[in-house]
Amino acid sequence: MNNFEFKNPTKIIFGKDTIKKLESEIPSDSKVLLLYGGGSIKKNGIYDQVKTALAKVDVIEFGGIPANPEYSVLMEALKVIKGEKITYLLAVGGGSVIDGTKFLSAAANYKGETPWDILANNIKTEKGMPFGTVLTLPATGSEMNSGAVITRKETQEKLAMGGPGLFPEFSILDPQVITSIPERQLANGLTDAFTHVLEQYMTYPIGALLQDRFAESILQTLIEVAPKVLKDPTDYKAASNFMWSCTMALNGLIQKGVPTDWAVHAIGHELTALFGIDHARTLAVIAPSHYKFNFEAKKEKLAQYAERVWNITEGSIDDKAYAAIEKTEAFFRELGIDTKLSDYTQDYEGTAEKIAERFTDRGWMGLGEHQSLSPDKVEKIVKMAY
Amino acid sequence: MNNFEFKNPTKIIFGKDTIKKLESEIPSDSKVLLLYGGGSIKKNGIYDQVKTALAKVDVIEFGGIPANPEYSVLMEALKVIKGEKITYLLAVGGGSVIDGTKFLSAAANYKGETPWDILANNIKTEKGMPFGTVLTLPATGSEMNSGAVITRKETQEKLAMGGPGLFPEFSILDPQVITSIPERQLANGLTDAFTHVLEQYMTYPIGALLQDRFAESILQTLIEVAPKVLKDPTDYKAASNFMWSCTMALNGLIQKGVPTDWAVHAIGHELTALFGIDHARTLAVIAPSHYKFNFEAKKEKLAQYAERVWNITEGSIDDKAYAAIEKTEAFFRELGIDTKLSDYTQDYEGTAEKIAERFTDRGWMGLGEHQSLSPDKVEKIVKMAY
Repeated sequence: MNNFEFKNPTKIIFGKDTIKKLESEIPSDSKVLLLYGGGSIKKNGIYDQVKTALAKVDVIEFGGIPANPEYSVLMEALKVIKGEKITYLLAVGGGSVIDGTKFLSAAANYKGETPWDILANNIKTEKGMPFGTVLTLPATGSEMNSGAVITRKETQEKLAMGGPGLFPEFSILDPQVITSIPERQLANGLTDAFTHVLEQYMTYPIGALLQDRFAESILQTLIEVAPKVLKDPTDYKAASNFMWSCTMALNGLIQKGVPTDWAVHAIGHELTALFGIDHARTLAVIAPSHYKFNFEAKKEKLAQYAERVWNITEGSIDDKAYAAIEKTEAFFRELGIDTKLSDYTQDYEGTAEKIAERFTDRGWMGLGEHQSLSPDKVEKIVKMAY
Repeated sequence: MNNFEFKNPTKIIFGKDTIKKLESEIPSDSKVLLLYGGGSIKKNGIYDQVKTALAKVDVIEFGGIPANPEYSVLMEALKVIKGEKITYLLAVGGGSVIDGTKFLSAAANYKGETPWDILANNIKTEKGMPFGTVLTLPATGSEMNSGAVITRKETQEKLAMGGPGLFPEFSILDPQVITSIPERQLANGLTDAFTHVLEQYMTYPIGALLQDRFAESILQTLIEVAPKVLKDPTDYKAASNFMWSCTMALNGLIQKGVPTDWAVHAIGHELTALFGIDHARTLAVIAPSHYKFNFEAKKEKLAQYAERVWNITEGSIDDKAYAAIEKTEAFFRELGIDTKLSDYTQDYEGTAEKIAERFTDRGWMGLGEHQSLSPDKVEKIVKMAY
């Protein structure tokens, strides 16, 4: 096991009818900016619950944060924060709204001239403006971590940011929100959380027995509840386990003491930036090719995953490892998630070269747990995913 | 799954040669009281590492905190805290030293006249004196939770306390400390952590699929590493998984959203108070009888535990459940832990009645996950454990 440090101060408020607890979490003398996305919260009743809970607090609203939170939109919100002397941010949404709020938390306290530098120069935020979240879409884990990914259409870029000052003070997770999420987004959430675990697990054995089992626990639980969540989002048992699994998949715990990969995300982000493909779907496109391309380096963990998660006990290590990749791809397809780039666009020729060139330009010479995936290898993986 | 709230702000610093990181965790203008136990830290080099790391800080020492931290000893430490105007506490030890330090953290800020009231009246501490820990004995999980148990010889009492203000600010976990721990204490630590998980798991199914799997993950890992830790404490892979498992067993995570039992601890504490039996050993004495006595209420989870943790797949639910109790008792015995009260004392007659009477006197009319274990039932369980 590698040495590690772990601290996660976010307060989780989990369960039925918990949105009303907002009232006691935000200081009553705050001036709050309520941030949300496309407005679905006004149709499903969540907006009303939030407003009722905040009846005694001074609240201004900023809606319209898009999926893949867009820098130019967030810069408009930043103007409101400064102009209205906002002191507390409340994200009501999924990973995009929460990630956008994290950027704003950092940008509100940033002393430099150009907030984009927080992303371009990977500046760690030690202290952001305080914020909380009401999660409306289980998927990214952003509700209990300190990272965010921001998109800039102007330059077709999608970059990560973070820092110890960007944990939500609290996050409210009411699994009942799932009943109003479209099936497509539920499938995305399941795929996203599943791949988050894979990125922290599918590397090489390092003797972190407990972390491995925790990761496998989340994968097993997602596999168990996925068909139930899609079939009947009012199934509270399935919904609550789905929601808690998504949070635990990326709150830092299972990545402590182990090598992590994240190449699937790095490559996937480019597919979103270039084609606008849903984040989760880009992961399902890249992961199988990535594991096949890096088969020798990953086969021991792939075989362990085959045995413990998929109950594949027959055959050699290679047999089991390969079967596990097939199982993973089949799992995504059963969720209704296509796993080839050509399923999403016919304009894919040259994509691999373009992504490799971008990675070269950024100086990203070695992705993955061994820092060995050079741009020419990335190019091959993307081609395998056509 | 039940509704829950979860917040654990303790910073964990885990790994080889991490004690030196103390230097950056305690504010340099602090006046520190360094608390420890019987002095083994002076023989195994931990004391020297701590003193070196704190070379630039004003430090006063208070040693001699006994196993089952004793109120009268802690009251002496409290005098030092007040007399010397201490601002920061540092526990260097196992669960007893850390629990004692939590009491001092609470008592230092307590406005009432008699600090014992914190325990007798179960007063929750919202803000204690800040403290950190260097863990020297994996077992209790006290390094990452906000609870403590304090003993008072004078009245033969052992009571619990806690509150959101009693999380350590940081805890340093260097698995190399295990090399200097006597085998008896390693066996105690393994048993203690194992039983902590059982208390939060061995109840009834409530659809908390992920929490169940996390609990099973810790049990499986402890079973896997236990013989290795006892055979060769320098086995870093075993030591590090043992240490992290003990922390995860009682840092709050696996108890969220599920019913919990804790009757084994409540009864076990009495055996320590009456006979001075090591805490962990009292748990091994009570748990098997408790599970046999409450077999009908617990058999579904017992059978799940049998299948997933002990690979017992044959037989009826009752068969599997019973076999799992036998396996658990055998596991304790393989660690060198006796599982009958008569293994520890020949003076056991009347113990069951005495404990039942104490519970009656305290008004503890219903222990366990169903609040149904009345003193007369406790009496029967203790008799089964003779």
